[in-house]
Parts: sequence; structure tokens; C-alpha cells
Amino acid sequence: MTAIGSREYVQIGDSEIFEAHEGGKLSIGISPPIDGPHALSVAYTPGVARVSSAIARDASLAARYTWATRLVAVVTNGTAVLGLGNIGPAAALPVMEGKAALFKRFADLNAIPIVLDAASVDEIVEVLRRLRPSFGAVCLEDIAAPDCFDLEERLTSVLDCPVMHDDQHGTAVSVLAALRGASSVLGRRVESNRVVVCGAGAAGIATARILLAAGIKDVTVVDSRGVLFDGRRSMSAVKLDVAAQTNPHGIRGGLAEAIRDADVFIGLSSSIVPESLIATMAPQAIVFALSNPVPEIHPHLASRHAAIVGTGGSDYPNQIINTLASPGIFRGALDAGVRFITDRMKLAAADAIAAVAADALAFDQIVPHSLDPRVVPAVTAAVVEAARFKG
Amino acid sequence: MTAIGSREYVQIGDSEIFEAHEGGKLSIGISPPIDGPHALSVAYTPGVARVSSAIARDASLAARYTWATRLVAVVTNGTAVLGLGNIGPAAALPVMEGKAALFKRFADLNAIPIVLDAASVDEIVEVLRRLRPSFGAVCLEDIAAPDCFDLEERLTSVLDCPVMHDDQHGTAVSVLAALRGASSVLGRRVESNRVVVCGAGAAGIATARILLAAGIKDVTVVDSRGVLFDGRRSMSAVKLDVAAQTNPHGIRGGLAEAIRDADVFIGLSSSIVPESLIATMAPQAIVFALSNPVPEIHPHLASRHAAIVGTGGSDYPNQIINTLASPGIFRGALDAGVRFITDRMKLAAADAIAAVAADALAFDQIVPHSLDPRVVPAVTAAVVEAARFKG
Repeated sequence: MTAIGSREYVQIGDSEIFEAHEGGKLSIGISPPIDGPHALSVAYTPGVARVSSAIARDASLAARYTWATRLVAVVTNGTAVLGLGNIGPAAALPVMEGKAALFKRFADLNAIPIVLDAASVDEIVEVLRRLRPSFGAVCLEDIAAPDCFDLEERLTSVLDCPVMHDDQHGTAVSVLAALRGASSVLGRRVESNRVVVCGAGAAGIATARILLAAGIKDVTVVDSRGVLFDGRRSMSAVKLDVAAQTNPHGIRGGLAEAIRDADVFIGLSSSIVPESLIATMAPQAIVFALSNPVPEIHPHLASRHAAIVGTGGSDYPNQIINTLASPGIFRGALDAGVRFITDRMKLAAADAIAAVAADALAFDQIVPHSLDPRVVPAVTAAVVEAARFKG
Repeated sequence: MTAIGSREYVQIGDSEIFEAHEGGKLSIGISPPIDGPHALSVAYTPGVARVSSAIARDASLAARYTWATRLVAVVTNGTAVLGLGNIGPAAALPVMEGKAALFKRFADLNAIPIVLDAASVDEIVEVLRRLRPSFGAVCLEDIAAPDCFDLEERLTSVLDCPVMHDDQHGTAVSVLAALRGASSVLGRRVESNRVVVCGAGAAGIATARILLAAGIKDVTVVDSRGVLFDGRRSMSAVKLDVAAQTNPHGIRGGLAEAIRDADVFIGLSSSIVPESLIATMAPQAIVFALSNPVPEIHPHLASRHAAIVGTGGSDYPNQIINTLASPGIFRGALDAGVRFITDRMKLAAADAIAAVAADALAFDQIVPHSLDPRVVPAVTAAVVEAARFKG
């Protein structure tokens, strides 16, 4: 087993990667085994008719006698895949298979990839509405902003099951957890940080929102046109909303203006940030350069100016990745049988991840590794606990 | 292991059946295992990005590096489930899980249940068109006639992958194979049989058609309103088509008129046929009472008048069931990489099933058991061979 955080990835050859993906990464298992005529009569006709009849009489029995109620549909249309952009549903499938594999590996949840040849929010909503009896939760993946916001909202209202866009909330929860860890290492309160979020896509918007929800007052968001401020023209509804709650100093301009004297830089932009800008941050700065596969700034360069550096990759210390959060969030939501994944659950999930890291906090260990076996049970328990809150 | 064809089913208690279905019958397996950070980097980010990029550049690589190209979607809207009728998609799911389990067990094919909250053909076509990159073949199940005919035809034209309605063609292929076996036992040519098909739903229509395609000239179909004849009023397009090719003696009336002196009765109707009608059949008659779970006539009663009796259940000898055919047909179609499942492939599949039975034909062994390990390889090979024919 390779050490966590090593530079191993750069050494992985194409042949190893492609070989591991040969035939896809998922398969179907059956239980109990069909090992003879008797088992066949039980699992299929005529035995199965009794189970179907029972569900037809009492719909609630579907939860107990089918796999669907605890099945996560990992859904994309392939419009914003990793750092690759709009590569379409077929090319997105290996990523969705990978995510389904992680749900199984981390949270013992069955998940199936649903890759959709569908461009519009209307089309995706319609398909998932029809598919609804086939699954128990929807994990949206790699769907471009701003459609992803509208889509998540509409699905949350239309489907009577948990729905979460992982690129938004899985990322946001993990960033908040990492920021808690980094702030503890540096001996300051998380709320005292002056934060710049670079990128106003799915992850950037959700991250800004969860930081606000966590009580951080000084958050500034920068998109490709510059700093978001209240009154900036031609913004989407989502950006208007975020602009109204952020940028308390009324900064105008671009990243250079926003990052000066900031305590925290959070890159979620797929852009490149020059070292000279990082150099203008406040002392003891925190840099999370989370674009994948190429971070906004190389962590070695960033560490010349920042006290703590994290990336989205497994090839450096402090990997801040949505898979820390989403397996446990979905597991918790399904265990608790909730209809909605609430902000309270997301905040609780971040706290739980931070609590796992708290045992051994260090400059290069601000979050647990996503393979740390304590993470998913902790997040699951926190979500189940948060689900008890009625308010 | 219980003897094949025993009366064991009647002894299976509810508790055993429901226990076997607890939590559903399917699960997701992952390969290769994610056993550490290195494997994680290969299976998910950043390694997976190389696979997705490659597919984005060359779409044909999806066949090699995803599970979808060989994945069978088992699709229903739950409008005609087993003998239970229109019980809806959620209650149909245990049957679809069972069918997916059989695809795995019999043909080593991955299959996932897709149960749709969709009433109309248009809706189902739209959903599957959007889902297309998620799977490699569509097995339609338990969709009511006459919609099933239109649906299969439209999906076959819209989706660039094999599509087959199992209740139609899996059943028809298995019936033809069984009729070949029964005819051999009785020492007569299959083409010489005078056949009555009782039921003009999915299975009845497809069975009448495959018998005609196999060269049987004397086929008469009876539905709930009586014998189908050319010129009968208010028939669906499908029934009009079948009526024009069947009933060569111009029989009018009901089952009583059609069954008199018939050599073969094929029940696919979910109705009850009195022993007195079976008694009017020709000597050395063949009775296939295939309704599930209750056959049209109890096999013990039928055997008073017929030389050979088969049912759809596993609790009597001669189980004639679509699972003899469909796993090998889909496996062959996917192995051969074909776009369409042709009549030639279906006829070849029936011949292959009959050939497996030929070794040990007997009055109570006219078809192999569906667990006979020779069946799927034989059907697969026959379909692959038939796929070579360009005509």
C-alpha cells in the first residue's frame, strides 16, 4: 500500500489505468444465489409473484423487499465532467461508474450510473420523474452551472426522495471540514477567516453558501468576470443571491483585488492563479487549490506563501474532495429515511469530518483521507442525528 | 437439490419466499477492488479522467471501458406483470430484479431493473431514448398488449441497440422449441400440427407468428371475443395482421370450435379451459397450459386426454418458460454486436433449445430445464451464427 499523499499518481501509466477500466468497473451480484430449481422458484416465478402481490397491496413493502429504496442513482448528462468540460454522457460514464464504486466501497450503498442524453433541465426532470420507482436517492454529478442549481431545486421538489448535487454540496461540506481543520492548526476561529472563493460554478456557489451558513461573515466570490458584488449587471439568479450575501467590503475588480490580505483562497475555477497573487495574501494564509486534475496553483509554489495548502488530488497532502462527504451523507439520509438533505445535515457532516481529523491535526493533515474508515460512519451518524431535528 | 419438476413449489412457505427477497435480490460489485490510495487514484480521480478523455475523443472506446455496452436494461411499466395484471412499476420490481438475476446467473450478463412510472408508449420511448448511453440492450418485460407491440417496434427503430420484449419472443421461442420436442416424441413433423393458440396478448401473438415463421400452416388464434378471422371487426392492427395469416379453415366461434380436432393447444391467456374442451382434441394431443401461476387447465386433468402436457411453472414436468430463451438471445446479440434481434436469430434459438433436449427426449422431457448449463451456450452460439447471415 502506497503512503497516503505520495506523488504516486504521476507515476501511474496509461496501461495500468486503462487495464483497470476494461469492461467497466461495476457488476451485478445476486443474493441469495440461484443454485437450483428450488431457489429459482423462490427468486423468480412462481415465488416472486407473492412478493409483487404483497407490494401491490401495500406499497410500503417495496422498501423492504426491493433493492430500489436504498439504491443511489448517480446521474449526469456529462456537461461538466471533472476538469474535462462538456464531454457528453457516454464519456462521463467511467466517472459515474467510479462514483458508484465509491458509494459501495465507502458506504456499502448500491449505486448505478444513469448517463442521460439530455441537454435541458426539463428533459432530465422528466426522465427522473418516470424512473422514480427504480431508485431511492439521486446523486447528481458533473452537470454544468447554472443548470445544476435549477435542476437540483426542481428534482428536490418533484421527487419524493433525497436529491443532492455532489459537485455542489459534497465539495462544500468537505471544504468547510478542511477549513475547520486548517483554522484549528493555525489556532484561529473558523468564523474569523477572510475568504475568497475563486469560481462561481456549482462548487463555488455551494461553498460560499455553506461558509456563510457556518457563520463566516467575510466571503468574497470571484468569477471569470471578476468579483461578485451586489448590483453587478447580467448575473444569474443564483449569483445575484450570493452577491447579496457576500463581499462585505464592497470590493470591485478581479481576483487581484479580492485576494489581497485574504486569509483563505479556495480555488474551484479550473483557472490558473499566479504565485504573485498568492503572495499578496495575509500571513498564515490557507490555500485550497481544488481544480482537478490541475490545481489553480502548484502546491509547492503556494506553500512558499501559505501556511497550509490543500488540493483536490490524491497526489499531495490535504486532499479535499467531495467523496469525503457524499457517501456518508447519502448513507445517513437513506438510513434515516428522510425526504430532504437539509443544510443542517450538511453542516453536521462537515463537523463530523473535522472531528475525525481532530485527533491528529497537522499542517499536512487537516482532513482525514477519504479511505479513512472512520469518516463514513461519523458522517452517517451525524446526518442521522441531524435528521431528528424538526425545525 | 430438489428433483426437477417436483411439486416442491406448493410446499414453499411465505416466510421462505419473503426472507429471500429481503433487501432485494441485486447488489453492485466493483472490480478491481479499491483497496488503497493507489487503486483509488486509478479507479476514480485523477486516473479516470484519462479514460473519459479517451472516450470523448473516440466514442467507440466506450464499448471497451464501461459496463454499459454489455448491460441489459430490464424495463417495465408494470402494466402486465406475470399473471397479476397492472400492478404498477414498484410492485413489478421484484420480478424485474428476478429477471436481472437470471441474466447474471444464466448468461453472465449484468442487468439492471428500470421500472417506469409511465403509462404511454410515447413516454417510455422518450425515457429510454434519453437513457440510451446507460445500457447496451433493452429487455422489455410485462408491458400490456397492444402497447407492447407498438413500443417494441418504436424502440427498435429509435435505439441503436438490441431490443426485445421477452414476454413475446422469449415465450414464442421457448414454445417453438417445446413443440419441436413434443412433436419428435410423438413421431410427427412439427409442420403437420394443427395448432390453437388461446390468447392474443403479447405471448399469444408472438407465438402465432413464430409458428408461422417455422412453417406451421394451420394456426388458429382465439382471444376473449372468440376466434380471430380475416374480416372480424374492431381488431387492433396486430390482430388484423395475424388474422390474415391464420385460421386457414375459416373457423368461426370460440375456443370450443377452434380446439376440436386440434393437435396442439397453447394457452397464453390467463383463462380457465374446461377438461371437456381438451377432450375434443385430436388423438395424441399436445397441451401447453402456460399461464402463471395458474395454468389454463391442471396438468393432471389435461393428461387424461393429451399425450404431452407442459406448463409455465417449475412444479410440473415440461416447464416452458421464456428464460430458456432470453438469456442466450441477449448474450448472443451482445457477443455478436448486432443492432437488431432478427426472426432468424429467434428461430435459431428455438432450434438450439430443441437440440439440447434431443439427447434425452421423453414425454416428460420435451425441453431442457432452464438451469441446464448447456442451454445458454447453445442459444448464444446459434444467435451469433445467425447474426452472420446478411439477408
